[in-house]
This record gives sequence, C-alpha cells and structure tokens, in this order.
Amino acid sequence: MKKINVGIIGFGTIGAGVVKALQSKKAFLKEKSGIDIIISRICDNDLKTKRPVKVSKSILTSSIGKVLYDPDIDIVVELIGGITPAKDIILEALRQGKHVVTANKALLSDSGYEIFNFARKLGLSVGFEASVGGGIPIIKSLSEGFIANRIDLIRGIINGTSNFILTKMAEEGINFAEALSIAQDKGYAERIPSLDISGADSAHKLSILALLGFGVNAKASDIYTEGIVDIEPMDIQYAKEAGYAVKLLAIAKRTRDSLELRVHPTLVRREHLLANVGGVYNAIFVKGDLVGENLFFGEGAGAKPTSSAVVSDIVAIAGVISSESKAASRPVLFKKTVKNIKRMGDVETRYYIRFYTLDKPGVLAKISGILAKYRISIASVSQKEKSASAVPIVMMTHEAIERNMAKALKEINRLPMIKKKTVRIRIEG
Amino acid sequence: MKKINVGIIGFGTIGAGVVKALQSKKAFLKEKSGIDIIISRICDNDLKTKRPVKVSKSILTSSIGKVLYDPDIDIVVELIGGITPAKDIILEALRQGKHVVTANKALLSDSGYEIFNFARKLGLSVGFEASVGGGIPIIKSLSEGFIANRIDLIRGIINGTSNFILTKMAEEGINFAEALSIAQDKGYAERIPSLDISGADSAHKLSILALLGFGVNAKASDIYTEGIVDIEPMDIQYAKEAGYAVKLLAIAKRTRDSLELRVHPTLVRREHLLANVGGVYNAIFVKGDLVGENLFFGEGAGAKPTSSAVVSDIVAIAGVISSESKAASRPVLFKKTVKNIKRMGDVETRYYIRFYTLDKPGVLAKISGILAKYRISIASVSQKEKSASAVPIVMMTHEAIERNMAKALKEINRLPMIKKKTVRIRIEG
Repeated sequence: MKKINVGIIGFGTIGAGVVKALQSKKAFLKEKSGIDIIISRICDNDLKTKRPVKVSKSILTSSIGKVLYDPDIDIVVELIGGITPAKDIILEALRQGKHVVTANKALLSDSGYEIFNFARKLGLSVGFEASVGGGIPIIKSLSEGFIANRIDLIRGIINGTSNFILTKMAEEGINFAEALSIAQDKGYAERIPSLDISGADSAHKLSILALLGFGVNAKASDIYTEGIVDIEPMDIQYAKEAGYAVKLLAIAKRTRDSLELRVHPTLVRREHLLANVGGVYNAIFVKGDLVGENLFFGEGAGAKPTSSAVVSDIVAIAGVISSESKAASRPVLFKKTVKNIKRMGDVETRYYIRFYTLDKPGVLAKISGILAKYRISIASVSQKEKSASAVPIVMMTHEAIERNMAKALKEINRLPMIKKKTVRIRIEG
Repeated sequence: MKKINVGIIGFGTIGAGVVKALQSKKAFLKEKSGIDIIISRICDNDLKTKRPVKVSKSILTSSIGKVLYDPDIDIVVELIGGITPAKDIILEALRQGKHVVTANKALLSDSGYEIFNFARKLGLSVGFEASVGGGIPIIKSLSEGFIANRIDLIRGIINGTSNFILTKMAEEGINFAEALSIAQDKGYAERIPSLDISGADSAHKLSILALLGFGVNAKASDIYTEGIVDIEPMDIQYAKEAGYAVKLLAIAKRTRDSLELRVHPTLVRREHLLANVGGVYNAIFVKGDLVGENLFFGEGAGAKPTSSAVVSDIVAIAGVISSESKAASRPVLFKKTVKNIKRMGDVETRYYIRFYTLDKPGVLAKISGILAKYRISIASVSQKEKSASAVPIVMMTHEAIERNMAKALKEINRLPMIKKKTVRIRIEG
C-alpha cells in the first residue's frame, strides 16, 4: 500500500482537529482511499499547551525547516493562519516540491492567485476546501462540479459569528452588544471579534469565491464591505413585518460584463432558503447558466467540519501522488468571465431606509422630495410607533443607484428634523 | 493541447443537452481544463427526429459498435436509460478500455456495485454525478468532499415530479389528480408517471446514495417504498396546522449497526430546510460525524442541470486521462459502515394518523385502546370538522415500532365505525 507523509504546520484548534481526524480515521481512510496517510511531523511554536489529542513526541517540532526540508514529506498542511509567515511557508513548500493544503482565507484572499499559479507551473496541488464554508464542499463544487457553468451569482452567509448574532437578535429582540456577548460566551466569537463582525472575514472568503466563480483576482480591499455593528433590533423587527430577514451576505453578481462584489447586511425575502439559515450555520447560493439555482448549507467553522475539509484535500492529493499522475490534483485554471469589478457607486439595488425624525407635518414631503430629486422611487412607506420625541419612518425603495442613494441620504441627514443618522440596508432577491 | 474523444450513446433530451453544452462551451472548457473535448460519435436508434442542436451528419450513427469499438474514443457517455441494453453497453465499453459516464439511476441501483467494481479492477473511471439530484454535486460531495466522515443520515427530496405535485397540493388545496395533471401540462411529469409518483425513482437514487454513504449494496427491492398517490389535501392541511409540511423523502439512516432504507411521504417540521424546498427542486440533507449537518439544494432534473453534471464528469475523467495517471478518476471504494439493512417492521418512528369514523361516543376510547395494546403512545389528538356523516380524527404518536403500528391499524380498520382506510404518514426529525 502506498504511504503518503504529511507535515502539519500549526497545532492549534484546527491543527489538533486535523491530527485527531487523521489518527482516529486511519484505518477507515485506508480502506476508502487505498492509501496510508502518515502524520510524519507536526510543527508549532508552542509545544507545551495541552491539546485534545495525543501525539508521539518524536514527531513534534518547533522548527518549520524540519517540515519544509524533510524530503520524505509529500504534503504540507498550513494551519497557522494570517499572511506572515504563512505565505512564505507555502511558497517555500512548493519550491521544495511539496503539495500544500491550507485553510487560510486571509492569505488566499491576498495572494491566492499568485500561489495557485505558482503551484500550477510546478505541477503541484494546493487544496483549500477548508478556506470557505468549513466542511461544505463549495470549493470542489465551484471548481469541478460546476466547471461547465458560467456562474452568474454567488450569495453567501459565510461568517457564522455574524449569522449567530443576527439570529439571536431576531429571535430574542436583544441588541447587538448583548448578542455578541452571548456569542463570545458560547465560543462562537473571539474576544476581539472585529474580523467577523466588520465583514472582513466574509470579504476574504468572497475573494476566493470570486476567483473560482468568475476568474477575478480581487483582494479584500477591492470588495465593498460593511459589517453588522450598526444593525438595531427595531430594523430586524420592521424587516420581519415586511417579510424579510436581515442577513450578512457576501455577494458576487454578474451584471452584464462587470462583477459586483460586496459584503453587507441585507434584507432577504423570508421565502428564500438563505433567510432560513440560522445560528452559526453557513449557506452559499450559486446560480449557473446550466445548473440553475443551487444552495449549499452546513457548519462554516469549528475543528470538526474544518478537519473534514482539510482531510478531504489531503486524501485527494494523496490519490494523485500515488497514481503518479503527470498533473496536479484539480489544477485551478481561471477563466475570467467579466471585464471588471463594478464600482460600488454604480451598483443598483433596492433599499430599506429608516429615518428617525421629529413628528412634525411636512417631514415626509421633505424626505420624499429629496429622494425624488435623486430619482429614487419609493415602493412602500410606513410610520412606526412613536418612541420619545422622535418617530421612525421606514421606507422600501425600488431599484436605485448606490451613488444617488448616498447623496440623497447625506442631504436628508442634514435636515434639522432628522434626529439620528438614517439607517440604510440593501435588499436582495 | 490534449484531445479527448467522447462517444455519446442516447440522443434524447439529455443527450441533446450534453451535446449542446459540449459544443457551445468548447472554448470555455478548453480554457478551464486545458483539454480539447471532442464529440467524435453520437449514437441513437432514431436519427430522424429533430433535435434542438445541430451536429455534423458524419458523426451520427445508429450502430452502437461504432462507438464501442472505435479505438479513438476515450469516454463513452451512456444516456439511454433503463437496464437493457445499457448495462451491456457499459460493461462492453469498460472491456474495451473506455471510461464511462452515465446518468442511469435505474441501472446503477440495480448493478452499480458490479459496474463500479469491474471498472476499478480495470483502472477505469465511471462518472455518475447526473444519476442523483441533476446538477447538484452530491456524488462528488459524498465520495470525495465527505470522505473523512462516517455518514449517519441522508434524507433527500430526490424526485422533482413528486415534490412539484405535493407543493401544488399544499399551495392550492387541490387533490393529487389535479396536481398531477398540472405537472404533466408543464412537462414535469411523464404521461405514464408511475416511476416518479410510486417512489420507485427515489428508491433508485437512494440505492446509489446508500452505496456511497454506507457502502451498502441495496437494490430498489431492498428499499421500503411508498409513493404519494394516497396523500389527500386534508392531510396536507392538518399537517400544516400542526407545523409540518408533507414531503416524499428518501431516507438512509444509521441506527446502531443497521441501516434504515425507506422512501415514503413524510411529515417534516416547517423549520427544517427540507420543508421549504418547493416545486421541482431537489434537496439532500447529509449528516456526517465530522462535518455535521449539510444540505444540498438544486434542480434535480432537466437537460441543462443534467448536462452540467455529465460534462463535469467528462472533464474530470478527461483530466485524469491526459495526466497519464495510473489510477482512475476517483475510484469508488466502498467501506461498509453498517452490518445490515434494517427490516421495515423494526423501524421506529413517529406517526401522523388520520381516522375516518362515525361520530359516535366511544370511538376514541376504542381506537386508543387498540393503540395502547400495541404500545403506541399518543402525543396529540384532534377531532376535525365533520364532513357528511363521518368525522376525521387526527393523531400524532410518539416513537412507535412500525410492525406494531401495522398491526394496530389492521385491527382498527376492521372496526365497524371506521368508514375509510386509515391514513398513516411517518414523521421525521
């Protein structure tokens, strides 16, 4: 039986999960793949902290070189996260003729295009199923399952922390800070949760999806990104009354020759499957010209689902190595199917707007006058219950241009009767 | 650039869809795969009927041998369906050293185990992504994406026709015959729709899922199968009032060492994503020990989604051929993870039961007495509005053993006050 040696760099929560999966499923994987996958080295700075898995001391090392320059290691699994030194580690592993598996979305968002092309030139594989959607096989599905499709739309709930917070807010009527604190108590949010709640993590993953789906090399800085910090319970409530749920969506949408790339809170129609994805779950909606509408749902994070994805990559690459194939496992070839990334100001969408105004005659006339000036047409309006001295007015608009909306809101926010900054949430679907 | 020659056998709706996709996406696929995929032969009995795609007459043939014995053909795509002569064609293609792609669920249900093992021994690939769930990449996900998982549960809406009919019945309050007739008018149901509405098509697909998920070689005859013909609008209505939708589910569920395999109408809690899958859509829910709960949703039939799956198989196999790999593309190795298929009588589940009885004192006492005798405990009971002389009584039970339920209902149906055969629908989740 073929033996494949794996070196793991990064022995934190995910690393320990991968080691546990490879150990406990050794015989199972042998039977299913016909290959013996051996953990020959585990590298981490910290070799003292107790892990929820037992490993022989002889394979532990704090020297990355012991992995990168071990000629017996076939696959390097990078699980330290972040850009430095992960990028150098991966590039050097490839230079040393080793295949790579990584779960590092921040790095792939920044340098995925470069890394994939470098690996392809060398005839080596880079597995990255775990970088988006945890155990959901979305990378394989986009790059292989849907290979015959021109992808037209990807809409994902790809940050479990944000989705948990929004779900809690909706279910219990609590505010953002309270929901965040529950998420932290449950271990669903970091003590410093900014990467998740700012939308940055979703933007990292959207980069990867955009590269696979549209051949577009977009870094997170190319993606309009808005987090969930400003969402208030009343907006979730008003949205619900109108038949919508509020979700943090990552959107890659073809409109003619250009691609909209954006991450922001979104009103999603309650009938849409995405609206029914609650808690820490992730879901990715994909529309292709042949396959039509597809949805993938599952656990987007955690040691177990992530290790499911990492191990599937290891097994796939091990299969290619042991078959002595002349090509890498699923080489990622990108076909750019759009001309450019659309500027956010040019995006057209519908809007939910909540104004907080004094309850005086003429307010509505003033607001709607400004909206009309910017050719924003109102689909519905409702004045909500008065609270204290001001009253919320909620509007839904027809399709409007983002730039016009920004200008209109700037003008409206300057009106003396507007008591708080106007809330604006985009509507999709 | 590598050239791969494909021979297509079966030029009906699906065949024409595959030809159209390969033709119209030739350049696109070349760029994405680095391979030139050439349709070198198309075989069908009927070469006269007009197809929605143009092909050169020189590649058309009515002789299967022109495909099977053409040494230049690398991949044979079987799209004629049914067991005879499809099985012989596939086995002979393999004997001739050709890889095979098929969408034939009836055949794979019957002989998949044999065909896959035969191909594996010869080092050849059999692609069958299109056999379950149309364009949904469920085969790839189960066999590759979830390879590290012990699968515990698969629950699928895998017959679009039945789902369309049940959705129409629920939305419009119409009966089965009316909904079927709409499905036929829309082209979602055949003129002779028995394969779909009897559950047989779902059972075929469940065989394939059971083989991939549990390593179990079960033919359709090993699967308890009940269709949707007996579902009445009032049952859908009562289920809805209790918070459930009625769906035709194909279920493969591990209970200890044995596997439940069954296809039947099922009450699914409205909060479950499966309950929200309407129309002709398919959805497959998979639970694995690492990956947790996953759901795949998409179009389960039709020329376009099916061709998306068939072409993805062709491209994957073409990639393996051109890499001169010593192994087949994703050889299907089965790991049996259960000891046996559970007898239907041993299955434990909850039940919805509707009795149609005379409105007389003592009826409920009599019925509940019989249920108690068979240790079936009632979770809720409600007497519905009287219609004509009889009155429907609806019960939900706690978990009960199928064999006991069958005996109890037999006894109850013999009671003189029971005016119609009692309706019994299983509840899941």
